Amino acid sequence: MRLLVIGGVAAGLSAASRARRLDPDLDILVLEKGPVISYGACGLPYFIEGRVRDWRQLLVYSPEYFHRERRIEIRTQAEAAEISPVRGAVRLTSGETLSYDRLVIATGAIPRRPFPSSPNLFALNTLADAQGLHAHLAAAPAGRAVVVGAGYIGLEAAEALRARGWQVRLIHRGHNLLHRHDPELTLRLEAILHRHRITVEHGVEVTDPQRLSADLIVLAAGLQPNTTLAANAQLELGPTGAIRVDPHMQTSGPNIFAAGDCAESLHRVTGRPVWIPLGTTANKMGRVAGANATGALERFRGVVGTSIVRVCGIGVAVTGLSAHQARQEGFDPVEVWIEARERARYFRGRPTAVHLVADKRTNRLLGGSVIGESGVEGRINVIASALTSRMLLDDFASLDLAYAPPFSPVWDPLLIAAQQLAKLIN
Amino acid sequence: MRLLVIGGVAAGLSAASRARRLDPDLDILVLEKGPVISYGACGLPYFIEGRVRDWRQLLVYSPEYFHRERRIEIRTQAEAAEISPVRGAVRLTSGETLSYDRLVIATGAIPRRPFPSSPNLFALNTLADAQGLHAHLAAAPAGRAVVVGAGYIGLEAAEALRARGWQVRLIHRGHNLLHRHDPELTLRLEAILHRHRITVEHGVEVTDPQRLSADLIVLAAGLQPNTTLAANAQLELGPTGAIRVDPHMQTSGPNIFAAGDCAESLHRVTGRPVWIPLGTTANKMGRVAGANATGALERFRGVVGTSIVRVCGIGVAVTGLSAHQARQEGFDPVEVWIEARERARYFRGRPTAVHLVADKRTNRLLGGSVIGESGVEGRINVIASALTSRMLLDDFASLDLAYAPPFSPVWDPLLIAAQQLAKLIN
Repeated sequence: MRLLVIGGVAAGLSAASRARRLDPDLDILVLEKGPVISYGACGLPYFIEGRVRDWRQLLVYSPEYFHRERRIEIRTQAEAAEISPVRGAVRLTSGETLSYDRLVIATGAIPRRPFPSSPNLFALNTLADAQGLHAHLAAAPAGRAVVVGAGYIGLEAAEALRARGWQVRLIHRGHNLLHRHDPELTLRLEAILHRHRITVEHGVEVTDPQRLSADLIVLAAGLQPNTTLAANAQLELGPTGAIRVDPHMQTSGPNIFAAGDCAESLHRVTGRPVWIPLGTTANKMGRVAGANATGALERFRGVVGTSIVRVCGIGVAVTGLSAHQARQEGFDPVEVWIEARERARYFRGRPTAVHLVADKRTNRLLGGSVIGESGVEGRINVIASALTSRMLLDDFASLDLAYAPPFSPVWDPLLIAAQQLAKLIN
Repeated sequence: MRLLVIGGVAAGLSAASRARRLDPDLDILVLEKGPVISYGACGLPYFIEGRVRDWRQLLVYSPEYFHRERRIEIRTQAEAAEISPVRGAVRLTSGETLSYDRLVIATGAIPRRPFPSSPNLFALNTLADAQGLHAHLAAAPAGRAVVVGAGYIGLEAAEALRARGWQVRLIHRGHNLLHRHDPELTLRLEAILHRHRITVEHGVEVTDPQRLSADLIVLAAGLQPNTTLAANAQLELGPTGAIRVDPHMQTSGPNIFAAGDCAESLHRVTGRPVWIPLGTTANKMGRVAGANATGALERFRGVVGTSIVRVCGIGVAVTGLSAHQARQEGFDPVEVWIEARERARYFRGRPTAVHLVADKRTNRLLGGSVIGESGVEGRINVIASALTSRMLLDDFASLDLAYAPPFSPVWDPLLIAAQQLAKLIN
């Protein structure tokens, strides 16, 4: 029995590792088209910033490690060209054909509009991209940079360049930052960027980045699921454009699973398919795909849309639905933003902003955002946990959260926000 | 209509304030037996430590503020001597009698075994206690201190004295720290204390603290609900010894509510009454009691047993049930402790310990603990939120938690613990 995995970063290696743990006899082969596997792609902005001094710090495991410790074979620089579900085989660009009994597709995401790289134009999707940009920055004096795209990679790139002394303009074609239709979130984020003298231009479609007036251009203008192999093999894609999978990560093809940024997941708040490419989700999907490739029947339960990004030292996190999304999904949302100190003053507590969205009809919590200097990940995770269990706002407002002066105020900002929001409903 | 409130700290003032917000016409009078109201009792250890330089920093609101901004009258140094539910009146120790239409009892907690204070013997329950100890420390050279009691006040006192250069022995009659029957938690806590050269002696019953060989003795040996007034008025007490209340915070007496450390609450994991005196719970109970005293019908939903304490710079938090408690409550608990880095190494991530308890029969999460240098409050709150919604371990293990390198590892320690625990069940 051979399990073949296409893709050797988050989802692919999670799948391979889990499969090995559950089935000691399986023959497991992972194909990675790039030169390295298992690197922390989310760390790339911090390599650009200079905090990660050597890209090798981002490597988690080597192919040798997988071979030695997990008996998983890995081929780097091995790119799949075609999947044949009928024959149960994958042809490589080298011409070689590999047969499989089970296949996991973990081909990730790619830039929506790739541009040919040029001496001062860089993407920031792969380790190779980051290495190129890093080398450029090491050689070039700090000048004027333009970052195209205002998703989290764009924001992280802007911060990294600013930290290196560059003047930074952030431009993007939309009107909301972080791909979140939330004007208040955008205003607050912009205020942070402005404090750090990063200028922001909304509604600018960049048709030819080469013509931007800048010493350096970083393209972070959106990703799309890398579905070419899957689509060519006639596997179904979902409404989001990513590979359609069932809760067992099974595609429409026999014995073919998909996981990670190339696959759809389920949004637990709306109950509908969603495509939110993130490393955490990729790992979880990979685990499930790997288990089920050995004959298990595990379920991936989906996401609630949690993400977090550090912007100029400030944590910015969202989860669930914005009020706008909630309205589009047929809810009757009410929302509130509050600011409150996140710890006692004598423990250097600083203001934190908390945003909550709830459904007026059902009292159900639908989403939220947290912005602050510390405690942001903890608070957004509490909201995420509440969304997972479809908690009502009244229950959320009376959560038994931990309190002691070094850690929080007696009324946590989450509870203050919930109480304010409850007033708009009751 | 007059609302009379006995007790002017957390629960009493929350009740009075909420009542005013809902009923602008109510006559509201708060009686406080001490000289000050509305102080942050949880900040007292940090006043002892020296971080809070002046006790006035712990005062939140003055009686004048309540009079001016909320039209709430406050009498300090006014001690209730007797409640007469039949006549709807309270007699003060001064002999004066005050009638009420609604009464909120918020008499708090008192030491289980009060000792007469002496020049080198201090409790740490009230502001006056802390002021006495603070003055003593300002005058005395650092020497040998004994702290009696290993609840959170004892641990905080030990840390505060150690920070001031005292040699500290912590002694208590039990065998587990933090009143939590969890040997592993105790071992880990002891390791922290030992690293800071605080010695711990278990199973020592102190019958006469005066005879302890020490330059200074701090008594933090347990509290009990202050129910004398309520019991004398024939109000029912519950199985925990605290005042029995229904979910509306109503006592067995007509028009009499109770809130805060003198009252029972409901444990949402066991569904049974529990007495866990904490400022956060007191405030929540107070809000409900205050609302219902104006004719509303709000519910206090209970607690899940969350608490957090800083011990020598390390956050130690618990929520829900320990395995021991779970067994006593008829569950079939399995538990796991794991240690994992709580952030990327290049963001100075440090190991965090996570403990989870789940029910083998139902897969339900029952409790947990978190110990670490940072992120402790956030992680324990995620567990607390999951307990509130009776989340199953499988759902918990796939929570969509926020990930970015400055904030967390791609597999949060919570998820690692949940996956490990799942292996013991499935």
